[in-house]
Amino acid sequence: MPDTHLLRRDAVRALLREADVDALLVTDLLNIRYLTGFTGSNAALLLHAEGEQHTVFSTDGRYRTQSAAEVGDLERVLDRDSAAALLTRATEKTRVHRRTGFESHRVSVEEHERFAALAGGIELRRTPGLVERLREVKDETEIESLRMACAAADRALADLLAEGGIRPGRTEREVARDLEGRMLDHGSSGPAFASIVAAGPNSAIPHHQPTGKVLVTGELVKLDFGATVEGYHSDMTRTVVLGRPADWQRDLYDLVWRAQASGRAAVLPGTEVAEVDTAARKVISDGGRAEEFSHGLGHGVGLEIHEAPRLARNGVGTLSVGMTVTVEPGVYLAGRGGVRIEDTLVVRDSAPELLTLSSKDLVVV
Amino acid sequence: MPDTHLLRRDAVRALLREADVDALLVTDLLNIRYLTGFTGSNAALLLHAEGEQHTVFSTDGRYRTQSAAEVGDLERVLDRDSAAALLTRATEKTRVHRRTGFESHRVSVEEHERFAALAGGIELRRTPGLVERLREVKDETEIESLRMACAAADRALADLLAEGGIRPGRTEREVARDLEGRMLDHGSSGPAFASIVAAGPNSAIPHHQPTGKVLVTGELVKLDFGATVEGYHSDMTRTVVLGRPADWQRDLYDLVWRAQASGRAAVLPGTEVAEVDTAARKVISDGGRAEEFSHGLGHGVGLEIHEAPRLARNGVGTLSVGMTVTVEPGVYLAGRGGVRIEDTLVVRDSAPELLTLSSKDLVVV
Repeated sequence: MPDTHLLRRDAVRALLREADVDALLVTDLLNIRYLTGFTGSNAALLLHAEGEQHTVFSTDGRYRTQSAAEVGDLERVLDRDSAAALLTRATEKTRVHRRTGFESHRVSVEEHERFAALAGGIELRRTPGLVERLREVKDETEIESLRMACAAADRALADLLAEGGIRPGRTEREVARDLEGRMLDHGSSGPAFASIVAAGPNSAIPHHQPTGKVLVTGELVKLDFGATVEGYHSDMTRTVVLGRPADWQRDLYDLVWRAQASGRAAVLPGTEVAEVDTAARKVISDGGRAEEFSHGLGHGVGLEIHEAPRLARNGVGTLSVGMTVTVEPGVYLAGRGGVRIEDTLVVRDSAPELLTLSSKDLVVV
Repeated sequence: MPDTHLLRRDAVRALLREADVDALLVTDLLNIRYLTGFTGSNAALLLHAEGEQHTVFSTDGRYRTQSAAEVGDLERVLDRDSAAALLTRATEKTRVHRRTGFESHRVSVEEHERFAALAGGIELRRTPGLVERLREVKDETEIESLRMACAAADRALADLLAEGGIRPGRTEREVARDLEGRMLDHGSSGPAFASIVAAGPNSAIPHHQPTGKVLVTGELVKLDFGATVEGYHSDMTRTVVLGRPADWQRDLYDLVWRAQASGRAAVLPGTEVAEVDTAARKVISDGGRAEEFSHGLGHGVGLEIHEAPRLARNGVGTLSVGMTVTVEPGVYLAGRGGVRIEDTLVVRDSAPELLTLSSKDLVVV
């Protein structure tokens, strides 16, 4: 899809002119993937504001064939030290590279020293987060990948439930592995992050990692997991109960469900991210559980599992159409159990589009 | 194992005195894991040269319980912005924090600006790679984890072969998934990296990712994969042939086998890393295939799948007892097929200890 990548590069060019630099040295691999489609593990891109003719891509010899297929539309340089190779080239054309931006939010202090030594007559300018700013708003190609990733997770959970995969006697680790295998069956290239399966008291640990603990009747089981498609991540949490739910479990579930619904309803263009957090948090505070909701409400999701914007009390910024975010309130009662419900959504004009479609009714297995 | 971690922190303290700083702000999560045992996704450590009494660990509220269990021996501060919280504390005790080192090889230019603004009267000093320098030489706790990771990979391959998992008609992707599942069965917490299964012409692509390509009789199949145990990675490559090998396949295998044996034999304390590369590369050059061995010979392996030292022509430094490295020559004949053979080894006094024990005879399946 060279057109998509070219459009994205042109969008960066507009930002470069704003930032008053001639070019941007892109060294973050996800940004490079976003701008070129390259999926290897070593690369750099010198993206020139003037257009494609001065824009050069670099990777090393291992990726000769792959880069020809993925980045065939750009001039390519094969060099193990890709960034240095591109900087050196730029110094040979200082007339069109007087000021070159670099990704100062990613480039380490030591790397910057090295770049500065190589840059010669070029002024290296800090230009943090330019590509990430564009990445916050997804284009339809990206949303389609996210949709497929969410569908893989939905289908895996449906299969797992239908085939009795969550049952007393199995361990958290067995359930996690079963779930991850089923996501692969449905087109995931791998888990979006280390899947969380947390049963009983473990469900009260927000980021619990699956253990050999055996699932027992009467427990809450929290599953937080995601698939990866074309590099894009899905993120979903569901909490089920093994056997007839106790009253406290129903009440807890109901509280979190209402908070999540309130948070989702607040996902609209122009809304401050802190307001979305508040919309959900207020429901939990009113329910007397403010202290037990110990994390932010959600985050952007895309090529990274956690990316901007951050939906939290101290988050900054407003939502725009095309952003994809999670809404994931949770209430955790230490020693007893916790409930979290999480969806991945796209910000749309009048109401968010839900990408994770699994039922949010309390599932009794 | 608090003793192991305390020993490691004391080893850093010796380096801090050498570097003439009062403390080190550790922000790299793997370095924090190495020094404290903490396995969460957000933390910082202010490691004071004087000893444990001024040393403070920080993570956020999600990890309250986990950090108490994993880092119970250190003072803990719960704060989402862990590094900032520790820097702020240091400014309250400037008398013992006049000069504080930071991980300038990891800290971005922007982060450094933020640290500098917070540091007040403290001088922030670039101290790149201190912890990584220690991590190059593994202690026996680490080697035991690496041994278990290598054993998981060995057993998975043995099972796969014994049960006919590599056979004509299966796809590369199916074989990769089968192998990864079997590693989980043998104690791996997940693949050490994206497993490579490359059949026929694909085996000539050094870093090929598994596709839907079906395995066909007569092809070479290259498998490069690893397990993870306690955060430590194994790395092994074997190349098998489907059905009776052709003469060119036997010759190619024999050449790479001899190069790998020569490389392994050169893994001794005091040897320059470039010499180890040469020991293997010379065999391939003498065989007339210098151009077709397009990458370095190997790399250190531990908490990262690729870490120092780098065994390559332009690698710098010498081997020491306790380093764990891979030796992985390969020869790739474009369009036809390639062979790579890789082991993970520990540098020992008189001969390296092999951690990956799978046979290196040409396996015909």
